[in-house]
Amino acid sequence: MGRLVAAYGPEGALGQVRRGHLDPSFVEELSSGKGRTPDLARLLEGWHARLMAADPVTDLIEGHRLGARLIVPGDLEWPSQLDDLGSARPFGLWVHGNADLRFSCLRSVALVGSRAATPYGAHVAAEFGAGLSESGWTVISGGAYGIDTAAHRGALAGEAQTIAVLASGTDVAYPVANHHLFEAIRARGLIVSESPMGVRPTRPRFLVRNRIIAALSRGTVVVEAAVRSGALNTAGHAVALRRHLAAVPGPVTSENSVGCHRLIRRAEAVCVTSARDVIELVGAIGDDLAPEPRGPVLPRDALDEESRQVLEAVPSRAGAGPATIALDSGLDLATTLACLGALAAAGYVERTDSGWRAHRHPEVSNNRMTRTNGGDRGRPDPVRR
Amino acid sequence: MGRLVAAYGPEGALGQVRRGHLDPSFVEELSSGKGRTPDLARLLEGWHARLMAADPVTDLIEGHRLGARLIVPGDLEWPSQLDDLGSARPFGLWVHGNADLRFSCLRSVALVGSRAATPYGAHVAAEFGAGLSESGWTVISGGAYGIDTAAHRGALAGEAQTIAVLASGTDVAYPVANHHLFEAIRARGLIVSESPMGVRPTRPRFLVRNRIIAALSRGTVVVEAAVRSGALNTAGHAVALRRHLAAVPGPVTSENSVGCHRLIRRAEAVCVTSARDVIELVGAIGDDLAPEPRGPVLPRDALDEESRQVLEAVPSRAGAGPATIALDSGLDLATTLACLGALAAAGYVERTDSGWRAHRHPEVSNNRMTRTNGGDRGRPDPVRR
Repeated sequence: MGRLVAAYGPEGALGQVRRGHLDPSFVEELSSGKGRTPDLARLLEGWHARLMAADPVTDLIEGHRLGARLIVPGDLEWPSQLDDLGSARPFGLWVHGNADLRFSCLRSVALVGSRAATPYGAHVAAEFGAGLSESGWTVISGGAYGIDTAAHRGALAGEAQTIAVLASGTDVAYPVANHHLFEAIRARGLIVSESPMGVRPTRPRFLVRNRIIAALSRGTVVVEAAVRSGALNTAGHAVALRRHLAAVPGPVTSENSVGCHRLIRRAEAVCVTSARDVIELVGAIGDDLAPEPRGPVLPRDALDEESRQVLEAVPSRAGAGPATIALDSGLDLATTLACLGALAAAGYVERTDSGWRAHRHPEVSNNRMTRTNGGDRGRPDPVRR
Repeated sequence: MGRLVAAYGPEGALGQVRRGHLDPSFVEELSSGKGRTPDLARLLEGWHARLMAADPVTDLIEGHRLGARLIVPGDLEWPSQLDDLGSARPFGLWVHGNADLRFSCLRSVALVGSRAATPYGAHVAAEFGAGLSESGWTVISGGAYGIDTAAHRGALAGEAQTIAVLASGTDVAYPVANHHLFEAIRARGLIVSESPMGVRPTRPRFLVRNRIIAALSRGTVVVEAAVRSGALNTAGHAVALRRHLAAVPGPVTSENSVGCHRLIRRAEAVCVTSARDVIELVGAIGDDLAPEPRGPVLPRDALDEESRQVLEAVPSRAGAGPATIALDSGLDLATTLACLGALAAAGYVERTDSGWRAHRHPEVSNNRMTRTNGGDRGRPDPVRR
């Protein structure tokens, strides 16, 4: 149908279906194209039946009554990136909420994953959702339990919009228990669907829905996915659309991370561990760089080179004599003795009956040996946040 | 010292150190080389002091008394892959145990990671160790708590050798509590060290030790590593030596996986989730391929195309009439009704007062609709093992 509309426009396509007769040149083009030709007679029959059953005026009235609006290609609010779907581009979208779809999707990331998420996956989805939203990135997801729900909740805790793309009508709360969540999403973001009011979700609708999630966003992040999760279907669309694809690693003992690890292992998805990583990936090159993880500050970081060599040569268990320490440190005895004195004064080592011994947890607070650039090492470690 | 020995042989180098005078041409070569020239005077002083303190004959007698043997380049048991270390190649190795070092390392993998491992990391290290050992791959690691210990224990549960490369003498149990583990390793594998009997471990010895772990094995797997873990030092050696490098993903909430994720994210390490993945990486190309993760068999897998289309159009909550189902499935009414009948007979759907409804958990055991190739989908899923 997409190819028919692309070739003859909506009215043209409608006319051919109504007449129950396709333009011969179009039929020929389809047959000549690669891949098996669809059973056109059956297709026409199906389309015709749907046309008879369709009641667009009522759909519009009903949508208007419930507060939803129908947008089509060419409208101001229509997101042009959907054109990347080619003949699979939606003919229109029902939109319900207080945000502008086109604007909201300019900086948007899709967070997808299993319905049956683990507590770990739900936690990560909420963290990513909040992190993206706090940085002004719109979150796009479905309306299911698990990762979808957690991602929206996280996003609502931030400042940006969040968008739920449903496989049912925008007025159908599926699952029912997410009714209030959808309310909150409408207030700050959007509920989006290809289907008119009252349409129930079916599995094929979920699958075709996924292409919209992938096409609306700048990139898709798979938070948790078992081997046959629908999230991998969305990931496939993201790749086909040349959008960024990322996956969150998890325990190798968790079935819900198998899909993510396979994507990473095959280098189909980038490994992301935080919202910052995601923003670095989908954001502008140069800007939006994620911070390098930094380790904790260790006592020896504060020492000059020679003192460190000596300290590292001092055993932490049984003590050792200066000569042995000098040998291990590769320094001469005089330098070694000087360093040992300073290290003892700073609380790094102590002299025992059995010789010099290192303290396991020395006091390094403002000691005289701290290097001038020691402060740099002292930066809060983002990993620890 | 490595370069001196490489240039003049062991005796030649010894002679120059004993005389306390380096060959001028060698000095010139060092100065001309790139990188800052070492303080040769101090180096010589250090070497001379060590020479004075060294007692090689006693070392050999003591090693022999304790059951260890010293192997040097050229010996039958010497692993030639250590030559890749160039001038950093060990001058000799103390070996203690019932395995042959050269032979054991032909098919070997290094498992490294944090001392302060999480239960997850220890579990994975043991699983990998056992999996590799059961497939005839030797495990190489250190002798520390955490990942090292778990890896050896796992390997000992298998059939292959396991090798512990220590930063102390092969007779020094560090940590002391691993005394019995080292016993078990000697019985089935090897304890290896550059240092003679009685030498205590110091931090620099751990660092230089790591190059041997990386050079002995075909590849290194980082199981768990915080940002500044010593395991990353081993990983660096593996990369420098053009050995395979792999890392195990973990929860992004775990600090002990930050190092692994960074390696994977930078594509410095391959993401591995099982011993099979590791064997595929370090094993022969073509052989040793890891199985593709397969999902569970779903009811609809057993259906023919039309029946599946119909089944997917049948709502699982409120029922629907045949006409609606026909519309959603895109099939004509006659076909739809036929399929609905068969699906009902096979227990996929049921007819209720409100119309047709899908069963959530249908019985699919030997029903009449199973496809001939359905059995293929039924293979046990490795992920589930």
